[in-house]
Formats: sequence, C-alpha cells, structure tokens
Amino acid sequence: MSIELVSATKCFDGWQKRFQHSSEILSCKMRFAIFLPPQPEGVMQRLPVLYWLSGLTCNEENFIHKAGAQRMAAELGIVIVAVDTSPRGEGVADDPEYDLGQGAGFYLNATQQPWLQHYQMYDYVLWELPQIIEHHFPVNARRGLAGHSMGGHGALVLGLRNADRYQSISAFSPICNPMACPWGEKAFSAYLGTNKASWREYDASALLQRTDKVLPILISQGEEDAFLEPQLRLQALQAAATIKGHPLIMERHAGYDHSYHFIATFIEQHLRFHADYLLKH
Amino acid sequence: MSIELVSATKCFDGWQKRFQHSSEILSCKMRFAIFLPPQPEGVMQRLPVLYWLSGLTCNEENFIHKAGAQRMAAELGIVIVAVDTSPRGEGVADDPEYDLGQGAGFYLNATQQPWLQHYQMYDYVLWELPQIIEHHFPVNARRGLAGHSMGGHGALVLGLRNADRYQSISAFSPICNPMACPWGEKAFSAYLGTNKASWREYDASALLQRTDKVLPILISQGEEDAFLEPQLRLQALQAAATIKGHPLIMERHAGYDHSYHFIATFIEQHLRFHADYLLKH
Repeated sequence: MSIELVSATKCFDGWQKRFQHSSEILSCKMRFAIFLPPQPEGVMQRLPVLYWLSGLTCNEENFIHKAGAQRMAAELGIVIVAVDTSPRGEGVADDPEYDLGQGAGFYLNATQQPWLQHYQMYDYVLWELPQIIEHHFPVNARRGLAGHSMGGHGALVLGLRNADRYQSISAFSPICNPMACPWGEKAFSAYLGTNKASWREYDASALLQRTDKVLPILISQGEEDAFLEPQLRLQALQAAATIKGHPLIMERHAGYDHSYHFIATFIEQHLRFHADYLLKH
Repeated sequence: MSIELVSATKCFDGWQKRFQHSSEILSCKMRFAIFLPPQPEGVMQRLPVLYWLSGLTCNEENFIHKAGAQRMAAELGIVIVAVDTSPRGEGVADDPEYDLGQGAGFYLNATQQPWLQHYQMYDYVLWELPQIIEHHFPVNARRGLAGHSMGGHGALVLGLRNADRYQSISAFSPICNPMACPWGEKAFSAYLGTNKASWREYDASALLQRTDKVLPILISQGEEDAFLEPQLRLQALQAAATIKGHPLIMERHAGYDHSYHFIATFIEQHLRFHADYLLKH
C-alpha cells in the first residue's frame, strides 16, 4: 500500500499532488492525482473525497489542469482524487485505436483475453484506490463519484451498483447506455465477450431500471456535443428513471460541446451538489 | 486584415474562440485565442481587452485551458486575447533549444540575422494585433497587459514604453531584468546583437528607472519558483521602483511555484486589478 510522490504544487492554498503506486488489482504501476484543500492551522480535519473519472484518452492529469475545480474544492473542503483511465505500461495489452486498451478501460472488470490480467478498473476504483486514499490522507469515508463521458459512465455504474459505498453521483456528458452505442459495443465485446447478460452490469440505463436504492444524481449535457448521438444516449437513462420513478437531475445546456470548457463552466455547480451530500453527516 | 476561425467553444456563457491570420509584420501565419464574455440580449457592448502574453514554449492555447480566467472575465466583462509567443512556420528561423526561436520570441523586434525577417513580436503585439482585434470584435480602445514569465517581461516592457496605449499591467513570475539573467542574455545576444544599449529598450528594470509616467502594475511571485533566482530578478525591478518612487504592487506568495496552478490561484485578483482601470471611463 505504499505510494510515491510524483509532484506537489501549491494551488488555492491547498496542494495538488500526484502519486505513483503498484496496484495489486491491476498488476501494474498506476498514478493518481489528489487535491488536498487547505486545513485550518494546527488542525487536521478528515474531509470527504470526490473521485473524478476521466474520459477516453485522458490520464490523471487532464482534470487537474483544465477543469478549474480546485478553487471550489478548497472553499468547500472536499478532497478530489483524479483517477487514470486504464492500467498502464509496456506489459499491458493495448489497441492502436483510442477507444480500446490503454486510456480506455471503461471502469469494468474484463473477463476476456488479452485484457483479463490488467483491465480490472471497476475493482480498482471501488476497492483498492479508496483503501489507499483512506490509509494515506486525512479523509473520511464519505465518497462522491463524478466523471466525464466514459468517466461519466464509470461514475454512474459504480454509484448505481454500490449505493452503500457512495453518497452522490454526477456526470458531464456521460455514456448512458453503452450496450447500445458504438463505443460501448466495441469495448464491451472486447473486454466482456459476446454474452450480453454480462454487459448489463456495466450499463447505467439497464442498472437504473433494476435498482431500488438510487443515490442523488446530477447530469450536465451540452446540446452541441458532437457525441450526444449516437454515443451518449441520455434518453435511455432518462427513460429508465421515469419508469422507475427515480429522481434524476438532467440539465441540458444550449451551445455547449463535449470539451473541458463545458466542464469548467459547470464544475462549481457539481461540487456544490456533491457538498450537499458529502458534508452532511 | 481578414481572420479565419479555427475553433469556437462556449464557455461561461461566452465564447472561447481561436483564429488564424496572415501577419504582415511577422511575415507568417499566426494564431490567437480570444474569450468573448456573454453580452446582454439584444445589446452589443464594446468591452475592454486584456492581452495575455505567455511564457517560453507556450502557444495561444495554454492560457485558455489552464488559467481558469474565463469565469471572472465573463463576470467582469473583459475580453481576453491570448497571443502566441513567437512567429511560427517552416520558413521561420528556429533553434533546437526551448529558450530561443519559435516559442521564445521575447516580445521584441529582432535586429540580427537570421531572426530579423520574422521576429518582430513587439510591433505585432503593440500595433498589428490590436488593430485586428479592434476591427473584428466588439471592443473599445481600453487595453490591459498581463503575462507569465517571458510574457510577464513582455507585458512590463510593452506597458512601460507605451503608457498612452494601455491602462494597466500585471505579471506572474516575470523576467524583470533580462539583461542580467541567462535566458535574457542568450535571447538578447541572438535577437539584438552585442550592443547592450539596444537591450535596455527591452529590460523592464532599466525602463522603469528612466520612465516618468508609469501605469499601475501588479506582480505576483511564488516563493518556491525554481526560476526566481537567477532568471527572474524581481529585486532589480523593485529597486528601480524604489529609486524612482513609482508605486509597484509586488506580492510574494509562500509555497507557490512557476506553474499554471499558481496563475489559476491568483488570476481572479489580477482580473479584478485590471477591471479597476479598464472599466472606469
């Protein structure tokens, strides 16, 4: 469970750090970024943690440089952990395309070769990483999930399947119904094989239809997002929420696209949303 | 004076755009980024412009992705133009090192070969770019200058030499005395030759010593900045200000380094500083 400091930069009176560690579950070295808000002098408060899951091609760095989240995280007192999007390294299976292999782990546990050995991102984010964070940093056990695109899919799936482990979920431009979109079909076929019953465990729309206890969910979507159709399929998640009578805040924003400029614009709203659940004990 | 749209992304209810144009002064194609704050419905107000000058190795994109400036620019109603750091292109002289040639124009007018033809960034930022901005966008003639590192040097030099063209100057971690630091000595020798009299025209500390009309200046500096000594030499600028009795706000911040996380932390303060001068008519 040891971790090694990669970089530390002061930011909004707190610290933006990056660490490297050997992941048992993923059988490779992994990096994560963590923003630690300023603490009152002489006191070390245990703060809640928001886990940020990034989209295709990203690593643990994109969010910390582009989202502008540290300002509000510092003000609210929320730790943010930005996760890498897949196992990494020379010995880790990969694919020449951007939407499979390294940078595209889809936050699931692969059952097929050649992915089986390393691609266990679901268990890594759910179990191993929180254990490390809660061992090494002044945090409590209140956890939120947020993500973008493939990471929005990850946040929804992890939160819908583990309502006892998390307090709140939010997503920007999430892949809501990967069983029925090109990105998801390609990734699930490769990682999970052809048995579509296993796909339903990683499809937020399918999960929402069969889940009774649902965490608070906030989704933000840009209407000029080039991936909205056919990749994201928000209407499938909305339909599932309506059928089951689950509350779901889904906000569509005219003119916004799939980029980090969209995330930067609404990250304050997302952090305040999580604060409502993470900071209430 | 025609310009060509490269990209347009909605951001904080305004627009972050990038354009390409043929620069007469630089004899090459150049790109700039411009953030246009939201305008009240049915009204097109002419807004002031803050010119942002980036540091070594940057282009017009670093600031717009990493500084988080759009939130406050949208709120205050200030247009921000982010400039590239040198002429660009295959036919433009270059150097294998990061601190000379493309990405390292030092905001001066070169007088030496092989730089003479293209490296005229001083005139480009001072004359050509504002003319283009004021022709194509709803802006007024109130202008501020801000920059980081080499761009902080550029902001100080342009503002100190042209108090009639600008309202305010701010800089993060600026190169304050390039005549007496390794980065400056290398660049000035190459671009300006061995006659050091010409160097004084591009040295903020030398300029401040001989200038009577000085614009308001705000400087922010991180105390853990690895470049503080020997590259930045803030003490030379401070000494010149003291000798001449010029007001100079120079804030040193414990723990902060040279990175964009430092800029992001204090950009709101800088924008509010400029707003005091740009928005008062």
